[in-house]
Amino acid sequence: MNYIKKLSERNRLMDSKIVRDSLSTFGVDNLISLAAGHPAAESLDYELFKESVDKVLGKNDLSLMNYSFSNGIPQLREAVARFLKRTQNLEIDSRSVGISSGSQVTIDTVCKAFLDEGDVVLVEECTFLAALQSMQSCKAQIVPIPMDSEGIIISEYERLIEKYDVKLTYLIPTFQNPSGYTLSEQRRTALAKIIKYNDLIVLEDDPYGHINFNDKQINSIYSLAAENVIYLGTFSKSIGPGLRVGFYTGPFELIDQINAMRFSVDVHANVLAQNVVVEILDNERFYTNVKKMSSIYKVRKDIMVEALNKYLPESYSYAEPEGGMFIWLQGENDIDSDLIYKKAINNGVSFVPGTLFTPNKLDGKNKLRLNFSSPDLKSIDEGIKKLSEIL
Amino acid sequence: MNYIKKLSERNRLMDSKIVRDSLSTFGVDNLISLAAGHPAAESLDYELFKESVDKVLGKNDLSLMNYSFSNGIPQLREAVARFLKRTQNLEIDSRSVGISSGSQVTIDTVCKAFLDEGDVVLVEECTFLAALQSMQSCKAQIVPIPMDSEGIIISEYERLIEKYDVKLTYLIPTFQNPSGYTLSEQRRTALAKIIKYNDLIVLEDDPYGHINFNDKQINSIYSLAAENVIYLGTFSKSIGPGLRVGFYTGPFELIDQINAMRFSVDVHANVLAQNVVVEILDNERFYTNVKKMSSIYKVRKDIMVEALNKYLPESYSYAEPEGGMFIWLQGENDIDSDLIYKKAINNGVSFVPGTLFTPNKLDGKNKLRLNFSSPDLKSIDEGIKKLSEIL
Repeated sequence: MNYIKKLSERNRLMDSKIVRDSLSTFGVDNLISLAAGHPAAESLDYELFKESVDKVLGKNDLSLMNYSFSNGIPQLREAVARFLKRTQNLEIDSRSVGISSGSQVTIDTVCKAFLDEGDVVLVEECTFLAALQSMQSCKAQIVPIPMDSEGIIISEYERLIEKYDVKLTYLIPTFQNPSGYTLSEQRRTALAKIIKYNDLIVLEDDPYGHINFNDKQINSIYSLAAENVIYLGTFSKSIGPGLRVGFYTGPFELIDQINAMRFSVDVHANVLAQNVVVEILDNERFYTNVKKMSSIYKVRKDIMVEALNKYLPESYSYAEPEGGMFIWLQGENDIDSDLIYKKAINNGVSFVPGTLFTPNKLDGKNKLRLNFSSPDLKSIDEGIKKLSEIL
Repeated sequence: MNYIKKLSERNRLMDSKIVRDSLSTFGVDNLISLAAGHPAAESLDYELFKESVDKVLGKNDLSLMNYSFSNGIPQLREAVARFLKRTQNLEIDSRSVGISSGSQVTIDTVCKAFLDEGDVVLVEECTFLAALQSMQSCKAQIVPIPMDSEGIIISEYERLIEKYDVKLTYLIPTFQNPSGYTLSEQRRTALAKIIKYNDLIVLEDDPYGHINFNDKQINSIYSLAAENVIYLGTFSKSIGPGLRVGFYTGPFELIDQINAMRFSVDVHANVLAQNVVVEILDNERFYTNVKKMSSIYKVRKDIMVEALNKYLPESYSYAEPEGGMFIWLQGENDIDSDLIYKKAINNGVSFVPGTLFTPNKLDGKNKLRLNFSSPDLKSIDEGIKKLSEIL
C-alpha cells in the first residue's frame, strides 16, 4: 500500500520527517553537535531529583498511579504561583495556572483553540520550529514580523495588525530560539500597549528566561498585559526535559478552555513527575542550581563567541546573546545553509539550517543556528573551527 | 475582552467544556459515581511501582532527566515487543513500536496525520468521546457504523466504504467504550479481509483487551491485517493511568510518520516512567496483578448485573460485557439521558449520558454509560438502585 498518499495535507505541510532528520545528529560518533538544544548534562541536579522522587514515593499515595486533574495537581499549581511570585514578582491565583506535559503540547493545544484554516498568526521572522509545525497543522497563515537584535520591530507589528485580521501572535521575547535576541524593554512596553488597545492575544513562550547571563530582571509581556497574554513556562530547562512538566497561565477564561481541551490531547502530565516538581520547587537547592546552570551556559557562550572571533569569515555576523542557548549566524544573501549543512556534517560538525525556523523557507537560507548549551568547551572551539573551514 | 469570540470554529466543534463538566463528578461527596472510567484503587500495585522506580533511580542515569527519543527508549520498545509476543503471540520488530504518553495523544496525532477538513472517518455508532473530539478538531466528517452487541455490522461497513471515500476507520473492537460490546471472531475475520482488499487503514484502540472475564483469547484486528492497522495499547489500565505511558505499532512507514510528528505534539513520554514500565513488564508480578485486576472487575460487573436485574425498569436493556469497565443501558426512544443525568445527580448518583459518545448527539439520547471498575461493591448496588428510582 502507498501509505504516504493516504496522509492528510496538514501532515504534508508539517514536513515532520525532514525536521526530525535534521535534528538527528545528537550523540552520533565523531560528530560535534551544535544542533540540538539539550541542557548540559552537568547542569542537571540528579541528587535533588532522586531525593525528591524518594520523598514523594515514601508517602505511599495511590493517587500517583491513577487519573488526575487535566489542569494539574493543586499542590503544583500553588507551587508554580509561589515560584512566579519569587522569580518574577507576579501575583497569580493558582486557579489560573495549568500544569502541562511540556510547553510544546500546550502550544499545539493553543493553536487548535484559536486557529482555523487560513487564520493569521503572527510570529517572529525566525522562530521555534515545532511551534511553526503546530500552526501548519492548523493550516493557518503564518506571517513573520520583521525583527532585529532587539526583537520584533514595533512599527512592523503595527503595520501587520492593520493589514491582517490577526487571531494570535506567538512570541519568544526573551533569549529567543533560534536567534538569541531579546525584545527590549521599550519595545515590550509599546507592544503591551498595542495588544491591550487592539484586544489581541499573545502566546508568550518563555523557556529560557531564567538562563540569564546578567543580573538584570526582564519583565515578561504577561506582566505588562495580563489580560491579553497566555504565558508558557517549562521546567525542561531548569530541572530537566525528561520530566515533561511545564505550566501555563493567563486570563482564567482562556486557561479554563485549554484545561478542558486537554481531555482530548495529553489528558494530564505524569502524576509522579508533578509531585516531584512540587518538592523541587520548594527546595532552595533548585534556585542554587538554576544559578549554576546560567554560569555554565555563560562560560560556554563566551567560549563560542571567542571561537567565532577567531575563526568566523568576515562575511558572517551575529549578535551576542545575554542568555539562553543559541547564537544565530547570518551570512551573505547568496549562501545556502542547507548545502552548508551537508558539507558541515562531512567535516564533523552539525548545526540547524535557518530554513527550519522561518515560515517562508527562503528567508532562512543564509542563516545558521548554533547551540552552546550541550557541547563541552573543547567541542565548542573545535566545532566552530570545523564549521568556519567550510563557510 | 470577549475571549470566547476569539476561539476557533474547531474548538467550538469540540465542546470541550461540556465534556469536561459532565465527567467532573468523580470524588464529589455524597455522590456515587458510575461515570468515570478510573481503575479500582485496589487493582493498582503500588509496591511493584515503588520498587521499580527505586531500581531505576538507583542506576544514577542522567538520561532520565534529559531529552529522549520521540518514539520512546529502545529498552521499552523491546519490552513492548516481548509483551505482545507473550500476551498476543505477535511477532513485532521493536522498530515498529512507538512509546506514547498515553493513547489519547496518539489518537490525536493519527487524526492529524490522516484527516483534513471534510474527510470521512468511520467510527462505531457509539465511541470514545475524546477520540470524537480529536476528529472534530480536524473538522472531519464523522460517520457512525451501525452496531449490535457483536460489534459493527459488516454489511453496514461495506455499504459505508462504498458510499464514502473513507480516510480512516477508528474502532475499539474489544470490550468497547462505552458499550462493552466485543466484535465477534467471525466479523473480525470479515473486516480484516475487507480492509486488506480495499487498502483501508484502521486505527484499533485496545485499552481494555486484558480486562478479560473469560479465558478465551481474542485476536486483534492488527493480528489479522498487520499492513492495514495502527494498533494502540496502553498501560493506563494494567499499571496505572497516572504514568501516561502507552504504545502504538503498525506498518513501519506509518509508525515512523507518527514518531516524527510527535516532535510538535507531546515530544516524548516522561523518561523515568518509560524506564519504570520496562522494569514492571519484566516482572512476573505484573502478569499476576493483571489477572487479579480482571477478577476484581469481574466481581464488580457481576454485582452490577445483579443490581440491574433487581432494580432496572423493564423498558431498559443492556448486553452483559465479557470484559472491560462499562455497561451500556438503552432505554425507549423517547427518553432523554441528559435530563435523566440532572435528576440522577440530585438523587446522589452519576453516569455519563449517551449523547457524549455519538457523533450525532440525538443518537445517544436514550442511552447511559455505567462504569463498574471504580465504585466499590456496596456503591454499585446502591448506585443502580438510586439510578433506577428515577429512570
